[in-house]
Amino acid sequence: MTTPTTLQDCQTLDAQDPLRSLRDHFTLPAGVIYLDGNSLGVMPKATPARVAEVVTQEWGTDLIRSWNSASWFDLPQRLGNQIAPWIGANTGEVVATDSTSINLFKVLSASILIANQAHQDCSEGQNGPKNNRKIIVSERSNFPTDLYIAQGLCAQHGLQLQLVDAGDIPASLTPEVAVLMLTHVNYRTGAMHDMAAITALAHAAGALTVWDLAHSAGAVPVDLHAANADFAIGCGYKYLNGGPGAPAFVWVHPRHADAFAQPLSGWWGHAAPFAFTPDYRPAPGIARYLCGTQPIISLAALGCGLDVFDAAKPLGGMAALRQKSLALTDLFIHLLEERCAGHGLAIATPSDHNQRGSQVSFAYAPSGQSTGTTSPAFAVIQALIARGVIGDYRAGQADSAHLLRFGFTPLYLRFEDVWHAVEHLRQVLTTAEWKRPEFNQAHAVT
Amino acid sequence: MTTPTTLQDCQTLDAQDPLRSLRDHFTLPAGVIYLDGNSLGVMPKATPARVAEVVTQEWGTDLIRSWNSASWFDLPQRLGNQIAPWIGANTGEVVATDSTSINLFKVLSASILIANQAHQDCSEGQNGPKNNRKIIVSERSNFPTDLYIAQGLCAQHGLQLQLVDAGDIPASLTPEVAVLMLTHVNYRTGAMHDMAAITALAHAAGALTVWDLAHSAGAVPVDLHAANADFAIGCGYKYLNGGPGAPAFVWVHPRHADAFAQPLSGWWGHAAPFAFTPDYRPAPGIARYLCGTQPIISLAALGCGLDVFDAAKPLGGMAALRQKSLALTDLFIHLLEERCAGHGLAIATPSDHNQRGSQVSFAYAPSGQSTGTTSPAFAVIQALIARGVIGDYRAGQADSAHLLRFGFTPLYLRFEDVWHAVEHLRQVLTTAEWKRPEFNQAHAVT
Repeated sequence: MTTPTTLQDCQTLDAQDPLRSLRDHFTLPAGVIYLDGNSLGVMPKATPARVAEVVTQEWGTDLIRSWNSASWFDLPQRLGNQIAPWIGANTGEVVATDSTSINLFKVLSASILIANQAHQDCSEGQNGPKNNRKIIVSERSNFPTDLYIAQGLCAQHGLQLQLVDAGDIPASLTPEVAVLMLTHVNYRTGAMHDMAAITALAHAAGALTVWDLAHSAGAVPVDLHAANADFAIGCGYKYLNGGPGAPAFVWVHPRHADAFAQPLSGWWGHAAPFAFTPDYRPAPGIARYLCGTQPIISLAALGCGLDVFDAAKPLGGMAALRQKSLALTDLFIHLLEERCAGHGLAIATPSDHNQRGSQVSFAYAPSGQSTGTTSPAFAVIQALIARGVIGDYRAGQADSAHLLRFGFTPLYLRFEDVWHAVEHLRQVLTTAEWKRPEFNQAHAVT
Repeated sequence: MTTPTTLQDCQTLDAQDPLRSLRDHFTLPAGVIYLDGNSLGVMPKATPARVAEVVTQEWGTDLIRSWNSASWFDLPQRLGNQIAPWIGANTGEVVATDSTSINLFKVLSASILIANQAHQDCSEGQNGPKNNRKIIVSERSNFPTDLYIAQGLCAQHGLQLQLVDAGDIPASLTPEVAVLMLTHVNYRTGAMHDMAAITALAHAAGALTVWDLAHSAGAVPVDLHAANADFAIGCGYKYLNGGPGAPAFVWVHPRHADAFAQPLSGWWGHAAPFAFTPDYRPAPGIARYLCGTQPIISLAALGCGLDVFDAAKPLGGMAALRQKSLALTDLFIHLLEERCAGHGLAIATPSDHNQRGSQVSFAYAPSGQSTGTTSPAFAVIQALIARGVIGDYRAGQADSAHLLRFGFTPLYLRFEDVWHAVEHLRQVLTTAEWKRPEFNQAHAVT
């Protein structure tokens, strides 16, 4: 653009937005511009009434009878079927259950065993190597809990977790690698992997893939079948707006689903859970990735988040969501460059649409402006939050910068919100408001 | 008693009941006598408002800021501290999290490793046996999901699950046994183990104990420290009234808690979860038994159930609850014998108070009265439910009878309820009401 972008320009974009009606499905607190839907999505308007119905009617009044009358036992499958079309999975291939970490343990356990079985079958001859794929490869910058879960599994089974930078993934895929475990969209930078290309690389090397869709499901196009992926997990409380700590989901390609009974073999994954037989017999398909009794109230709340996605289908579905998401992040980056130039913001999110998720992160480390125990990036986020612009801060590690992180959820964000957010940021930077003592106290949990 | 017990006798007992005010803490649907609190506890009156607060205020309005302002991250510990005094644990030793099955996997993994470490340390000499305790002993009649989880772990680690009858437990404790895994109160019969005596037997044999308190916590006296137990897990949605599928809990004796990082090593169990370092470092104590992000709405509902137990403390605590529970089950058994004699009811629950949980089960299999595909016991339960008396049915296995099962929760049940329940049963049996076709349809999920 040659002329500066105005608030009116943004309002025009909002007026033309084919998805603008979806905002009405959510409760957004007054005075808040919420750019943290990649951490905890906002509340759908339908959720309070639905949760109240589950609590007072299904539980309080119908009590134990609701296992039948409200089909509580099938909730993981019904919600999984609502998630499936948004990640390129088919009906019956996804369940909503447990936490992302727990589900990762399940699929990682399965993938290691299956990778070694496949290798046995395909080895050069009877003297060829067997069960010798002992390595899980992941990115050093993967979300830590994914690495922790892999470490726990490695410690149990004498495996090795090898952490590499994104560019070194192809070279890391040696014949010893069982599984490549990646998060599709990086939680810090918003950088997105090419799932199909990387999966093909892994398969060519005889390894399987485990994809964490925590920052992808409902945010960017995902086609697990087209990518020929093997296993996937994801989060219910970020872009899916399922509520704090909402149950997660798990997908397994049908070619693997019946090959292995994952070790968290609880009764909900039994072929006949109400037969109460002493021997475990895994259910066919994805149901065997269930374990224990699920938190029904939280599961029901997740359903309200998924219902909004149902409403997005006739408005263009993921293609429309993606188009708006990129327009929002493009606008944010453009306005940062136009209105916050000269303050030393360093954008960490790829400019290439094919490599960008639905968030924008940038570093802010002005030289000579240290205020003591906290980073300027942290202080800027605190100052923005005080103004009602909610993003978040992710501290850098030894090899990475402190980042300000902003999520852009096309379901409920307006272009006008982007304009105001950048204007607040501009004021925080130009007035050095972020240097105030109250924004520079020791980090609390965020 | 020599003269028949009357309804008025029961009403007198209610008038004298020091716990009678606790019933006011619950919403009980009209026309229902609920004897299934051992399967799904009833709803505390405080729950709908508390859940609404979490949904609309903490989530909907405060959004991501509630991780700090509402201390969501500490909920597992805070709820654990409310559970602790009811199971003989200390503050800081219990967390409420995940499902019973998942928690069992954690403690079973830990117990096997620790049992073998201890054995190494204590072996006769350097040439003594090491890491050769490969057996998990459990009861054949244990709740199936416990057996399934043990089977999943055994398959992963080349261990063996040995199932025995209760009477054969002492003889089963050979030097190869790593862990004795028992449910304290049997889910079918209500038979209760002597936790201290059996734990002592296990320890004498060099094995550790894992106790499932699903049918004990909040229902019978449990003193884990006095029993010198090693590990325990339990359920939030039965006697604790936490709501459908409420998160479970886990306790580890402090002598073991820091000895092992359980394999489900997610970020909530990290010593510094918000440092986001790539390496897992387990938190000290019970916090390392946390894994992924927890379902906050369901956790908050569990808190309301536990608050009622707080209210029970000044009324006499567990001693008073136990006294009433035994009085309720004694009355039920007595009325069955007095009013339902001659119908072939065979009580499966021990008459000895020291061996009885807070439920009564009995078989009903009248000869020559088969009505086809379903059992008479199932049909009787269906007929009772139609009358508003809610108990449940547990089908027998090859070596066990079909049972009618009735839970007696001293927090909200009245002696009068027991009288009416038996009267309904008497009518169902004497009029053969249970033979009606609608009570003899193929079993649905219950």
